[in-house]
Amino acid sequence: MRDLLKTPPKLPADTLRVIPLGGLGDVGRNSTSFEINGQLLLIDCGVLFPSDDHPGVDLILPGLHLIEDRLDDVQALVLTHGHEDHIGAVPYLLRRRPDIPVLGSRLTLALVREKLKEHRLRDVDLRVVSEGTRIRVGEFDLEFLAVNHSIPDALAVAMRTAGGLVLHTGDFKMDQLPLDGRLTDLRGFARLGDEGVDLFMADSTNAETPGFTTHERDIEPAMERVFASAKQKLIVACFASHVHRVQQVMDAAVRHGRKVVYIGRSMVRNMTVAQELGYLRVPANTLIDLKQLENYPDDKVVMISTGSQGEPLSALSRISNHEHPVVTAGPGDVVLLASSLIPGNENSVYRVINGLARNGVTVVHKGNALVHVSGHASAGELLYCYNLIMPKNVMPVHGEIRHLIANADLAVATGVPRNRAIVVEDGAVVDLAKGKAKAVGRLDCGYIFVDGSTVGDIGDAELSDRKILGADGFITVVVVVNLHSGTLVSGPDIHARGFVEDDSVFDGIKVEIAKVIESAMSDGSEDVRGLQQVVRRTVGRWVSNTYRRRPMILPVVVSA
Amino acid sequence: MRDLLKTPPKLPADTLRVIPLGGLGDVGRNSTSFEINGQLLLIDCGVLFPSDDHPGVDLILPGLHLIEDRLDDVQALVLTHGHEDHIGAVPYLLRRRPDIPVLGSRLTLALVREKLKEHRLRDVDLRVVSEGTRIRVGEFDLEFLAVNHSIPDALAVAMRTAGGLVLHTGDFKMDQLPLDGRLTDLRGFARLGDEGVDLFMADSTNAETPGFTTHERDIEPAMERVFASAKQKLIVACFASHVHRVQQVMDAAVRHGRKVVYIGRSMVRNMTVAQELGYLRVPANTLIDLKQLENYPDDKVVMISTGSQGEPLSALSRISNHEHPVVTAGPGDVVLLASSLIPGNENSVYRVINGLARNGVTVVHKGNALVHVSGHASAGELLYCYNLIMPKNVMPVHGEIRHLIANADLAVATGVPRNRAIVVEDGAVVDLAKGKAKAVGRLDCGYIFVDGSTVGDIGDAELSDRKILGADGFITVVVVVNLHSGTLVSGPDIHARGFVEDDSVFDGIKVEIAKVIESAMSDGSEDVRGLQQVVRRTVGRWVSNTYRRRPMILPVVVSA
Repeated sequence: MRDLLKTPPKLPADTLRVIPLGGLGDVGRNSTSFEINGQLLLIDCGVLFPSDDHPGVDLILPGLHLIEDRLDDVQALVLTHGHEDHIGAVPYLLRRRPDIPVLGSRLTLALVREKLKEHRLRDVDLRVVSEGTRIRVGEFDLEFLAVNHSIPDALAVAMRTAGGLVLHTGDFKMDQLPLDGRLTDLRGFARLGDEGVDLFMADSTNAETPGFTTHERDIEPAMERVFASAKQKLIVACFASHVHRVQQVMDAAVRHGRKVVYIGRSMVRNMTVAQELGYLRVPANTLIDLKQLENYPDDKVVMISTGSQGEPLSALSRISNHEHPVVTAGPGDVVLLASSLIPGNENSVYRVINGLARNGVTVVHKGNALVHVSGHASAGELLYCYNLIMPKNVMPVHGEIRHLIANADLAVATGVPRNRAIVVEDGAVVDLAKGKAKAVGRLDCGYIFVDGSTVGDIGDAELSDRKILGADGFITVVVVVNLHSGTLVSGPDIHARGFVEDDSVFDGIKVEIAKVIESAMSDGSEDVRGLQQVVRRTVGRWVSNTYRRRPMILPVVVSA
Repeated sequence: MRDLLKTPPKLPADTLRVIPLGGLGDVGRNSTSFEINGQLLLIDCGVLFPSDDHPGVDLILPGLHLIEDRLDDVQALVLTHGHEDHIGAVPYLLRRRPDIPVLGSRLTLALVREKLKEHRLRDVDLRVVSEGTRIRVGEFDLEFLAVNHSIPDALAVAMRTAGGLVLHTGDFKMDQLPLDGRLTDLRGFARLGDEGVDLFMADSTNAETPGFTTHERDIEPAMERVFASAKQKLIVACFASHVHRVQQVMDAAVRHGRKVVYIGRSMVRNMTVAQELGYLRVPANTLIDLKQLENYPDDKVVMISTGSQGEPLSALSRISNHEHPVVTAGPGDVVLLASSLIPGNENSVYRVINGLARNGVTVVHKGNALVHVSGHASAGELLYCYNLIMPKNVMPVHGEIRHLIANADLAVATGVPRNRAIVVEDGAVVDLAKGKAKAVGRLDCGYIFVDGSTVGDIGDAELSDRKILGADGFITVVVVVNLHSGTLVSGPDIHARGFVEDDSVFDGIKVEIAKVIESAMSDGSEDVRGLQQVVRRTVGRWVSNTYRRRPMILPVVVSA
C-alpha cells in the first residue's frame, strides 16, 4: 500500500525541501522540485508514455499541480539531458510561466528549442551551461558535471544550499571507453565526496541489473558483421536521439562504401541539430537526401530510421506494412534494430519484426545479436559511485519502486545507514538540514493526462469507462414514452458496438423491455430515472445470462 | 505480405497433406492436421491467449473450421504434452464430436480429463500412450518418443504413412542433466534418421536464441540462496504445470525445514494429479493445507503459488494488493518468481513485483537472479537435431514467423536444401510424397474467438469498434423528431462515456445540433437516416476541432 497522504510541516529556514514530481515510481515523467528559503528550483520536466492502464491517453505529465501556486518562486528549470522523459513536459510548464529560466547543455537546449517551436513557444529564456559551469541561481549554487548516457552532453547537477549539498546524477552510466571520450566525471564526484555530499540522488533504472553495463563500442563487431554480410538494402533503426549509435552506423557506412540517408522526421531533425552543434561527425559526401535515394544502388546506401519501438506510424512500421511512400524492403534486404525493447512495447516491436521477416527481410535485433547496450549504470557502477562519494543520505531516483529499492540496497551495502537511504515515490516531501534527510509528508502527485488537445481533462472515471468499453463494448437502449398516458411511444431501439455484429439478437429482449417498461409505468409511480434503471437491469441480466459478458449498458428514456 | 489464399489441388492417393491449424505464426493455439487416403489425424489442439490486439477476448482457438466437414474422418487427436497452448481447445473440438480418440501420455491425459470435467464432457475416449508405444491408427503408424520440456511426460510423435515418415517434436528442449533423468530420446531420433525422416517438424520457440538452454538444475544455487536468506514468510510463484520447478522448491523446503502449502486452485489441482501419478515426489509430512497455515511459524512454511504472470485474479496479485483472504506479505518476507516473463505480460508482472516491493517484500525474479530457465531448445540444440536426423524436408512449427525463419535457417546451415525448408504459417497446405514436401495452397485459418460463453461470435468488426471505444470512448446523441411537422420533439440528449466527466461541455453543441436538425427538416427531404448523418457530422467536427480526439459517435434519431 502506498503511504497515506500527509501534509508536511511548514518548511523551516535553511532547510532544503525535495519533492519528486515524477519519475520515482515510474520510468518516465522525471521531475523534482527543490525549495529553500522561499525559492524553488526544478530539475527536469519530462513526460511518461502511457501504458495499457491509460487507454487513449497521449502523454502523462509530472505533478506540476503541486507547485502551481508557487510558479513565481521558481528560480530556474535545470535539464540534465535531452530525452523526452526529461524534457517532454517543458512546454506544459512554460505555457503557464514562459519566463522561467531554463538551464541545460547546448544539445539539450537545442532539442528543447525545437520542441518549444512545435508548441509555438518562442520567447523563452534558455541558458546554456556545461560541465564545469558553476552558477548561483538565488539560493541555489549550481555546479554541472559531465555524465555519460545514451545521448551526448548529459549533465549531473551539484547543488550547494543552506540545507546541504545535493548531487543529482540525471540519467547516467559509466562507460570507461565512451565513443566521444567524454567520461562520467568521477573525479568531480570524488571531489564533491571530499567536500561532503549530504544527499545523493542517483539514477535507479538498472539498479536491479547485476554487474556492469557493456561498452557502447562493444556493439561494433555485430554491426560490422551486418554491414559485411548485407548485399542489398540495409536499414538501421534506432532512437532518434542516440547520436553515438548513429555515429557508429555512419562510421560503418563509410568503411563499407555506403551513403547515409535519414528516414523519419525526428531522425532528420535531431541529427541535423547534432551535426550543426558538432556532436555528430558526418564525413563529407556521406549524407544524401531521401529524394536522391533512387540514384544509388541498394548496396551503396544505409538508411537510418525511426520506429525502433514499433510505433505504428513510424517509418519502419510503414516499411514493414508496404505503406512507406518511398522505401520498400524485401527478400535479401537487411533491417538492424540497434535499440532497446522498452517493456510494454514487445507486441508492437515483434509485429514489425514479423512483418519484415514475412516479407523475406533478414532482421537483426537485440534478441539475436549484441546490437544494443543500455544507457544506464548497472549495480556494479552504482557501487563505485557510493564508495567514491560516501554520501550522508541517499534518495534513489528514476525508476519503479523495485528499482529504487534495489538502488537503496546498494547504498546500504556500501555503508550508508538504512535510515539514511530514503526510498520514496512521487509526491513525497523530504527535508534536508544539518546532514540529515527525512521524509516528512506526502502530497497527492497523481497523473495529469494529455489527451488530444486537452490537459487534465481525462481522469480515472473516463479511463475506467474506456477499459470496460474496450473489453466488452456497449449497448444503448432508447425508449420514448409518454409518462402521462403511461404508454410506450417508440422503441426500444437497441444499438450495440463491440458486442455482436447482428442486431437481430436483440429481437427477443426488445419485446421483454417493452413489457417491463409498460408494466413499470402502469402504476404511474416511475419517473424517467426509474425507467432507465428498469431497462438497465433487464438488459444487464439478459446479457450476463446469455453471453456471460459485461458490456456497458446505456439506457436512454425520453419522455415526449 | 501473407501469401494470397489459394485452393489446394485434390489430394492424390498416398500423399500426406499437412495443414497447420495454429501455432505457425503465433506462440499458441498449436494444432496440426494430417491427412492421407481420406483419413485425418490431429496433433495437439491448444489455445492462444489474446494480446491487446484482441480486447476483451478470452481465448483464441485454432482453425478447426478448416476440418469442420471432415470431423468424421478424424482417426485420433494426439497430444504431445499438457500445456494449455497444446490442450486448451480440446473441449471445443470434442464438443463437436465427443468420440474422437485422444492419445497422450498419462500426465497429459490426466490434465485433459480435469479440463473436460469443467466443460462437462465426461464420455470421452482417452487412450494412454508413452515413449516406446507403437500403434497403428488407420493410415497412421504412430510411434512415441520421450522429450524433455517444462512439464513432465512430454512426447514427440513419429508418424509412418504411405506419404512418408514424419517426426514432430512437440515442444521440447535437450537438457542433458534433467531432474527426472528422462532425456529427449536422441537415440530414437538417430534411429529414425537412419530409417529416413521425410519431414521433420521441430519446435521453433527459441530458434533465435544462440547457444544452449541452461539446465533446469542450474537454478538450484539461486533458489538455495533465497531459502537460506529468508527469515520469515517465503512464497514461490511458478507455472501451475511446472512439476519439476515445484519439485525443486519442495526439495529445498525439506532441506530448510519448511512445510509446503499450495496456493491457487490450478496449483492444487495439477500438483495433486502430478503427485498421484508419481511425477512429483512429496516427502511424508511435507505438504500442509492452507487451513493449517496459521499453525506454523512464518519461517517454517513455503507457499507455492500461481500468478507468476501477474494475472489480476491470481493468488499472487491478490497478495500484493492485500486482497487475499488468508495470505499477507510484508516487510522481511520474500517472494520468488521462478518463472518466465511471457512477452506482453511485462506490465502485469511488474505491477505485482512493484506492489510487493512497495509493501516491503523482497522480490527475487529472473531480472535479478537465475531463477528460471526456458523449456524450449535453443539454436545450438536444434543444430544437434538436424545433424542427427538429417531430414529430407523440414517444416518449423511453434513460433512467430521470425522464429520459424530462424529455425529453417538452422536446418539450411546443416545442409537441408533451402527449397526443402518449408516456412509457412497457419492455413498453409503442404503435401508430402516420394520424399518431397511442397506448399500447394493456403486456406483462411483466421482466429476463432471465445468471448464469454460464445465461440466465433465476435469478429474483426467488433474488435475494431472495441479499440476505438477503448481509446476514446463514445458520444450518443438522442433526438426525437416529428418528421411530418418538421419539428424537434425532444432532445438532443447527449450521453458520453470515456470522454469527459462533465456533461455541461455539451451545452453549446446541443444548441447547434437542434439548429442543424431543424434546418435539415425544413425542406422536408430528410429521413431519419439522413438526420443521423447530419448529427454525426456536426458532432464529429466539433469534437475533432475542440478536443482533437475521435470518440465513436452514435446518433439516434427517433421519429415519434
